[in-house]
Amino acid sequence: MKFLDTYTKSIEQELSNVEFPDAPQNLYNPLRYFLEIGGKRIRPILTLMGAELFGLKSHVVINQAVSVELFHNFSLIHDDIMDEAPLRRGKETIHQKWNQNIGILSGDVLLIRAYQSLSSGADNHLADLLTVFNNTAIEVCEGQQMDMDFEDRSDVSIQEYIEMIRLKTSVLLGCALEFGAIMANASEIDRRNLYNFGQLIGVAFQIQDDILDIEGDAELAGKRLQKDVSAGKATFVSLLGIEDARLRAKELIEEAIDALSDYGVKAEPMRQVAKFIIERKM
Amino acid sequence: MKFLDTYTKSIEQELSNVEFPDAPQNLYNPLRYFLEIGGKRIRPILTLMGAELFGLKSHVVINQAVSVELFHNFSLIHDDIMDEAPLRRGKETIHQKWNQNIGILSGDVLLIRAYQSLSSGADNHLADLLTVFNNTAIEVCEGQQMDMDFEDRSDVSIQEYIEMIRLKTSVLLGCALEFGAIMANASEIDRRNLYNFGQLIGVAFQIQDDILDIEGDAELAGKRLQKDVSAGKATFVSLLGIEDARLRAKELIEEAIDALSDYGVKAEPMRQVAKFIIERKM
Repeated sequence: MKFLDTYTKSIEQELSNVEFPDAPQNLYNPLRYFLEIGGKRIRPILTLMGAELFGLKSHVVINQAVSVELFHNFSLIHDDIMDEAPLRRGKETIHQKWNQNIGILSGDVLLIRAYQSLSSGADNHLADLLTVFNNTAIEVCEGQQMDMDFEDRSDVSIQEYIEMIRLKTSVLLGCALEFGAIMANASEIDRRNLYNFGQLIGVAFQIQDDILDIEGDAELAGKRLQKDVSAGKATFVSLLGIEDARLRAKELIEEAIDALSDYGVKAEPMRQVAKFIIERKM
Repeated sequence: MKFLDTYTKSIEQELSNVEFPDAPQNLYNPLRYFLEIGGKRIRPILTLMGAELFGLKSHVVINQAVSVELFHNFSLIHDDIMDEAPLRRGKETIHQKWNQNIGILSGDVLLIRAYQSLSSGADNHLADLLTVFNNTAIEVCEGQQMDMDFEDRSDVSIQEYIEMIRLKTSVLLGCALEFGAIMANASEIDRRNLYNFGQLIGVAFQIQDDILDIEGDAELAGKRLQKDVSAGKATFVSLLGIEDARLRAKELIEEAIDALSDYGVKAEPMRQVAKFIIERKM
């Protein structure tokens, strides 16, 4: 993702500046460790792009971008406990390396830190940011609960699965973009357009994830693959078949890119992100 | 606590109005259940009193009061998992009645709902409320981690133990009072005085808890007693002896009541709460 390098760099820079107290070590060492594991940082990058689309310099929204990434990492830490996942991006998960209680509590702290970062420099946008963030955070939890509920069911419909993915994954991409738009004083309609773009690419992102769970390279992905298949869990591939899943992802990305047609050349980086999603290999 | 009846009633009324969606059932039924278990509701009552001390009607701060109670319940749900507690107020804990994953996730949602309630009707006080709330929430988690760390140590000093209790228990009482003061436009000094009062009675509250763990009635308390003692955990009683612990609690309550001397007769309900703490039997 060469075109994203500048964005990624500023996010990594800012994340490395996130400070945690020395004590209690068992609370903060896991968080230092987890944030250093890395990741694609797609969500905070979307916040920067959302701001730039409306003429706001990206550094003005860096705290809000970091907030989205901290929230995402909170949800990964807790999801890893619930899914009993030993690895994340090729490294031991927190509950595996320390223990489960430390995973629960350090996750809690990271969620609170996400709120702190959100508030920092938010000025008169604080109430709007909070409304979007609270709603999104609750939806992500609802999606995770639906995901767990689906494990015990063999009759999950494609509509139900899409709704679960929308909540668990997509709304946070929408929220990330809307954060940028809010900070840039964008109109309600512009906020909505960006949010919808985020949701569309979010579902496509998950379809690609489900395809990579079958076809991907475990070493490249840094995690065990085909675990959904072997657990008999519903995925886009099991529900649609691999070819139709691929087709659906392409349609969603086209729809997402169309949704940006009003924003001209300024939206080019966002279109690139959308295209990248169906081309990614990990 | 007859003198608290009006406050308790309005808190219970408001908590019974807290609405959760129907689905996912496994996320929201546990929260409905847990909020109905009850409790002393001391923290939200303090928010109402804090507002009234500065001439603001208590109904204006009801959402901020509820926010403190929701946060408190979030921390209980997660702490119960970490402590493997089967009972809370005589009823099964969430992880016991449902399962651990549901305990983690419903706790997460309740924390987010606390932020929603905090924001509701906060108007131009939102940034101040958030700053206090975020700091407090992080400290509560730090206190819980210290508490867990202490389980593996036999050399915990009284100073360390007080600091752990200050973080785990007392700061939230201070925060609850300061919420009321913030909403009532109280000065920085007044905010600080109320916060300190909350911290003092919070430590006294825990001393009384540790004494009741030895002398209390398990049925009245609705939980297993003497578990700290049997686990060899440090408590105020093990560190000070029961008589000195009782003395220390009385001194703290006197200090707390002194701290309110400037506020005259208006602070009488808060003094009553302080006195109640060392007289309580559960």
